[in-house]
Amino acid sequence: MRNVYIRGVGMTKFGPTQSRLEEMMYEAAVQAMSDAAVEDVDAVVVGAMSPESFTGESNISAFITDYLGLVPKPTIRIETASSTGAAIFDGAFFALASGFFRNILVLAGEKMTTLGTAAATRILSEVLSPQERRQGGTMPALAALVCRAYMHASGCPREALTYVAVKNHRNAVKNPYAHFQFPVDAARVETSKVIADPLRLYDCSPMSDGAAAMVMTTDKTPIRVAGIGHGTDYVSLAQRESLTSFSSTRVAAQKAFKLAEIKPSKIDIAEIHDAFTPFELIGCEDVGFFDPGTSWKEILKGETALDGPLPVNPSGGLKARGHPVGASGLAQIIEIVWQLRGHAGARQVGKPLRYGLTQSVGGMATSNIVTILEKTG
Amino acid sequence: MRNVYIRGVGMTKFGPTQSRLEEMMYEAAVQAMSDAAVEDVDAVVVGAMSPESFTGESNISAFITDYLGLVPKPTIRIETASSTGAAIFDGAFFALASGFFRNILVLAGEKMTTLGTAAATRILSEVLSPQERRQGGTMPALAALVCRAYMHASGCPREALTYVAVKNHRNAVKNPYAHFQFPVDAARVETSKVIADPLRLYDCSPMSDGAAAMVMTTDKTPIRVAGIGHGTDYVSLAQRESLTSFSSTRVAAQKAFKLAEIKPSKIDIAEIHDAFTPFELIGCEDVGFFDPGTSWKEILKGETALDGPLPVNPSGGLKARGHPVGASGLAQIIEIVWQLRGHAGARQVGKPLRYGLTQSVGGMATSNIVTILEKTG
Repeated sequence: MRNVYIRGVGMTKFGPTQSRLEEMMYEAAVQAMSDAAVEDVDAVVVGAMSPESFTGESNISAFITDYLGLVPKPTIRIETASSTGAAIFDGAFFALASGFFRNILVLAGEKMTTLGTAAATRILSEVLSPQERRQGGTMPALAALVCRAYMHASGCPREALTYVAVKNHRNAVKNPYAHFQFPVDAARVETSKVIADPLRLYDCSPMSDGAAAMVMTTDKTPIRVAGIGHGTDYVSLAQRESLTSFSSTRVAAQKAFKLAEIKPSKIDIAEIHDAFTPFELIGCEDVGFFDPGTSWKEILKGETALDGPLPVNPSGGLKARGHPVGASGLAQIIEIVWQLRGHAGARQVGKPLRYGLTQSVGGMATSNIVTILEKTG
Repeated sequence: MRNVYIRGVGMTKFGPTQSRLEEMMYEAAVQAMSDAAVEDVDAVVVGAMSPESFTGESNISAFITDYLGLVPKPTIRIETASSTGAAIFDGAFFALASGFFRNILVLAGEKMTTLGTAAATRILSEVLSPQERRQGGTMPALAALVCRAYMHASGCPREALTYVAVKNHRNAVKNPYAHFQFPVDAARVETSKVIADPLRLYDCSPMSDGAAAMVMTTDKTPIRVAGIGHGTDYVSLAQRESLTSFSSTRVAAQKAFKLAEIKPSKIDIAEIHDAFTPFELIGCEDVGFFDPGTSWKEILKGETALDGPLPVNPSGGLKARGHPVGASGLAQIIEIVWQLRGHAGARQVGKPLRYGLTQSVGGMATSNIVTILEKTG
């Protein structure tokens, strides 16, 4: 198998926009191809969770490839709910590793704000167990269940959830691509409206529009894909062995670290899927940064702050960079690329960086993906 | 890169059913895994064009992997409109060629009959150019435009379209998996109702439910994947260089034959995407079986009959085996596997077979895929 590298990246600002999905993808793709200094690619891998439902668009990979002027290049669409952006990265990784391609454009996007929040919430809830949906299980409702179980088992206080929101908003202030470029203080978080107890408004990522793109290659560049892993879990929470840990993340992380031949302690920076603030705490444990039930203590000590020993979500995370569902997984990887390259502007982590990790959650943790990048140059 | 082989296959009978999508996929997957004599696989690649629209199901790859009892194996969904079943084969091919996996379960299905024909026609038309849809361009309407252009340019008579329908129904009578297991004569075809002039009812494939599954492997088996290729084209017909040939097929075929290192004349049997009867004529030319504009003459001579020198659509094709859109591409490949193995029952082609080809059309020929299999054992 060939080594796989990242050649160029691009992204739109996340947040509500009048732009159509293909226009956002075009903007991101042009940036990525310009950054990669390529005028052509061998294939196009497109990610979107549900343009069929959000905007009534179908056959999206062919539409985008045409719109980008890349006909007759082959194209496919890959989808794994909210980890789609990471899944397209995986798909292109294997295709490149096979030696059949040299440069592949991967691009992901979602246009979520067209129909309004109620319709988008319904569409997002279709990824859940029908049995649990019939009991009122929307995505925030089930995340609240997980949060409550985690707080009960670990002793995690409300303060730790608040810290995640405050930290990620603070990071996003420095990120020109972020949906929310404003700080929030603890009082604002803790007095915001209850979405699904104990989750409040500022514990939840927003509905965003946005797109991200990347040129991946078998040519050596300074950013190598060191590890990838993907795990699944039962759709119904009732069947899970635990509510306070996502086994799909643990499986994915084990595979990714095995491939990278490193331990979690070697990771210098990470983007963790914080669609809800407790997910960042659980994610940090599941990938092996902290022992089970202890994330909240480490996080409250400032371990994951931008100037801490292990910065988590320097971009602002899904919480504050925004969460266009199909794009987030790729946006996480792009943030790590920018950080490893030293191109992250005001939010650049100061310490030397070698390994960066991303963790992406598909659905209610039914299809989770972990990626490890290494700066080799 | 590793060689890739086919280890086992399975399929449901196509046609309207009360079974749900996951039940059909389960039935096909159990057959394929039993045929492959494996109890586990390393990954699951799921194909469906639009369960979101047809039945309101989302996150389909995680649902299916759970339903099959294959948690925590990684899974993705791949989609390329009506060539989806072939695209998942491609995706798994590259993943296997990379050496990261040994056995991958690919399974594809579509549940199209739930909402009725009018709604399904609307969903299928979403793959087309919005500009052409606004002019009344449904899928049959645009296929009729292509048909008219082809007949005008080549001199193809109505009789040749009829022959395709009659031949494919005749083959399907011998196929227990076929949606339509009854013969039609020329008079019945030519007096059937006009769908979009010159296309009549029996020129069009039906809305079908169905699923197909396959275990692909890097272990040597008697059926090797010799070549694959994928090409795209402009979504709008108005931008095409030709209406009487699909350049996406030509690009795909050139790649597949180059990889297989053979000429089209070496192909012994083929499944060609006959969603509409003229597509079989055009497809046979685009993959290189016959010169442009001459398919109809060869077909009327019986060249592609089950007992002819180059049997095309021994299964009955999309026309008569049925066309559950996400599954058809994989069903085509499975028919070739059965034929190469000598397992095709009453429709088994009598002559010795070495190479078989499939051609699959995504959307209005925006994402076409050609696959070549070789019997090596």
